[in-house]
Amino acid sequence: MRGLFVTVEGPDGSGKSTQVENIRKFFEDRGMDVILSREPGGTVIGERIRNIILDKDLKEMDPMTEAMLYAASRSQHVAQVIAPALSQGKVVVCDRFVDSSLAYQGFGRGLGEAVAVINSYAIRDYMPDMTFLMKLDPEAGIHRIERSRAEQDRLEQEKLTFHKKVYEGFLELEKEHPDRIVGIDASLPKDRIRDLIFAKLEELLG
Amino acid sequence: MRGLFVTVEGPDGSGKSTQVENIRKFFEDRGMDVILSREPGGTVIGERIRNIILDKDLKEMDPMTEAMLYAASRSQHVAQVIAPALSQGKVVVCDRFVDSSLAYQGFGRGLGEAVAVINSYAIRDYMPDMTFLMKLDPEAGIHRIERSRAEQDRLEQEKLTFHKKVYEGFLELEKEHPDRIVGIDASLPKDRIRDLIFAKLEELLG
Repeated sequence: MRGLFVTVEGPDGSGKSTQVENIRKFFEDRGMDVILSREPGGTVIGERIRNIILDKDLKEMDPMTEAMLYAASRSQHVAQVIAPALSQGKVVVCDRFVDSSLAYQGFGRGLGEAVAVINSYAIRDYMPDMTFLMKLDPEAGIHRIERSRAEQDRLEQEKLTFHKKVYEGFLELEKEHPDRIVGIDASLPKDRIRDLIFAKLEELLG
Repeated sequence: MRGLFVTVEGPDGSGKSTQVENIRKFFEDRGMDVILSREPGGTVIGERIRNIILDKDLKEMDPMTEAMLYAASRSQHVAQVIAPALSQGKVVVCDRFVDSSLAYQGFGRGLGEAVAVINSYAIRDYMPDMTFLMKLDPEAGIHRIERSRAEQDRLEQEKLTFHKKVYEGFLELEKEHPDRIVGIDASLPKDRIRDLIFAKLEELLG
């Protein structure tokens, strides 16, 4: 029996981490074995790759290099964490996954279809069963980040026009995959968001 | 006017570095501007990626992750070094390039066509004008390495069966691309190899 794979996506500052924790509780309260993870990262090799991707001194990074580093981190994450956990029937909850690459590198960097092709080799047969997209105006997200974090990483430092393209990408993906991607208004109160997500997870469990 | 792109390929221990130096001299003696580089690496970002790829403690690395890290390093190398140099009419001489990925990850790791697809995005329009393949029995190459280096990296530590598959891959590529790839018997005396390479470079310059 294959486990369940749930991902949370959206702009920085949209409250993904809080909801990842809520989703964990939802499944644990039902006696299920849950693994939390995040991208980029999730493995020793992935964290090493993450350090390169987010290093704000590496301003010369080519967009295709960036896309390939995310895919490399994802490939390791799938092989070492996600695939084994799912094959043991566990629930995997992941903060960002392939949709982030499609939005940030495909739409934001303008690399388009190349990102989907490269990532198809990274994710193999492991697409999420359900993806929550935290929808928040990019400007609001950036303000939340600026208030809450001392230092911004290389991608957070990108200009607003980039973050707007990324956000349009997320909305496009939501339209393309209505069965998998559940859009959530991230400006709602946290408890209300949790209730919306829990209702969808109940549906997923059938 | 686009410059010239020459690569040197083959197993570790086959004498690539010596011939890269000879090729540099060949072009410099003719008053041409030459850039030497190597893969994986060749840029600050590429060297950071190289450190992950060759780290002998990362034994858990998934083959697809490995292939993507090489491609990421190559993408940066092409964008930052190879493409600008060629567009300035320079000669670029590179120790390993895409054929190494096709041989090591495509044949050695058995990833096949995926490696060519992923790398097509990394190399864009920059295929070498001429590639010298240093042909040396893998067993002999490994012995040369063991004698000459204090410590072996993660790929050098692979078993002989892996290196034999890689070598068969190189021979396969030589057959597929007879116009681009020049096979060189690496067991010949160094001066004889240099003369063979220089004769081919004369042909390339027409």
